[in-house]
Amino acid sequence: MYEGPVQDLIDELGRLPGVGPKSAQRIAFHLLGADPADIARLQLALQKVKEGVVFCDICGNVSEQPTCRICRDARRDPSAVCVVEEPKDVVAIEKTREFKGRYHVLGGALDPLSGIGPDQLRVRELLARIGAQEVTEVILATDPNTEGEATATYLVRMLRDFPGLTVTRLASGLPMGGDLEFADELTLGRALTGRRSV
Amino acid sequence: MYEGPVQDLIDELGRLPGVGPKSAQRIAFHLLGADPADIARLQLALQKVKEGVVFCDICGNVSEQPTCRICRDARRDPSAVCVVEEPKDVVAIEKTREFKGRYHVLGGALDPLSGIGPDQLRVRELLARIGAQEVTEVILATDPNTEGEATATYLVRMLRDFPGLTVTRLASGLPMGGDLEFADELTLGRALTGRRSV
Repeated sequence: MYEGPVQDLIDELGRLPGVGPKSAQRIAFHLLGADPADIARLQLALQKVKEGVVFCDICGNVSEQPTCRICRDARRDPSAVCVVEEPKDVVAIEKTREFKGRYHVLGGALDPLSGIGPDQLRVRELLARIGAQEVTEVILATDPNTEGEATATYLVRMLRDFPGLTVTRLASGLPMGGDLEFADELTLGRALTGRRSV
Repeated sequence: MYEGPVQDLIDELGRLPGVGPKSAQRIAFHLLGADPADIARLQLALQKVKEGVVFCDICGNVSEQPTCRICRDARRDPSAVCVVEEPKDVVAIEKTREFKGRYHVLGGALDPLSGIGPDQLRVRELLARIGAQEVTEVILATDPNTEGEATATYLVRMLRDFPGLTVTRLASGLPMGGDLEFADELTLGRALTGRRSV
């Protein structure tokens, strides 16, 4: 619809997830009128990510240095390892300020239909880590969906043979601030099964 | 929340209009796993826009060459000029396939509170163009909001003295496919005022 570079930019922006044609157009015209320094900063940020982001050699989280901030932090309890699918899950759990242990980022969840088996995830690294360090609890914090549940079930089986290791799973139940009548059957069922005496 | 380049990219993406922190995170992680060639294309598109987009020396629309595709097209009627605020308005009108004339892009609308007067818009160029060429109709297609209406009113006054020139304004009324009961009073009022015999 537009000529030359403007349409190219709209096309490229429109390929990003969650950016539709209208948003792409809006962003492109914003950049057209933006300070060249702002565009240069965005270009530089893209360049750095293109050149490769470093992943922590211990936990697999995105990192600035070979070992990430959390794995370097001596105040974090090395005996508890929280296993998550993605770096954004680490951020979500960190925001709760409830967990003082370390993380292990799998890089996804088991999904045989998409060809993602244990070898495509950082499962071997997890087992090696638990074997080498004095880990006493592994918290399985994969997503509460089909792939995440399958991954948790698989990991429970793999972790069964480590002596003295407690394996836990995040509680399923009603989301806080939610409305009981709007909860789906599965969630409400889990909330019932997991009921606690008060 | 993230370390290094990933957070930088999330921050830069989050500055774009309509991109919230969640979308920025989603786009950043998409780019993290994207083909470097895709990122390079986005970078190139940004570079070209940063280096400056060409504006048509006749109508002011974004253009690849000094004169845009529409102004170069001999089949387009030069006697009718449609005045719009922004390049995206040209695209919107082109999509209707109802208009076979030329355009004039003002580059915005009058907005004295933001310091945008006639000198900040391409008003002088419009008057020079109408004086020099055999234009018989000017269609004022500025937005039907306060600034757009003010701009149209101002242009009507400026164009009054051109002999033999018809100045028209896009019809206001009920949007097609809309529901009469959900129309706002102003729109419904305009639809009544502008009623046509059928």
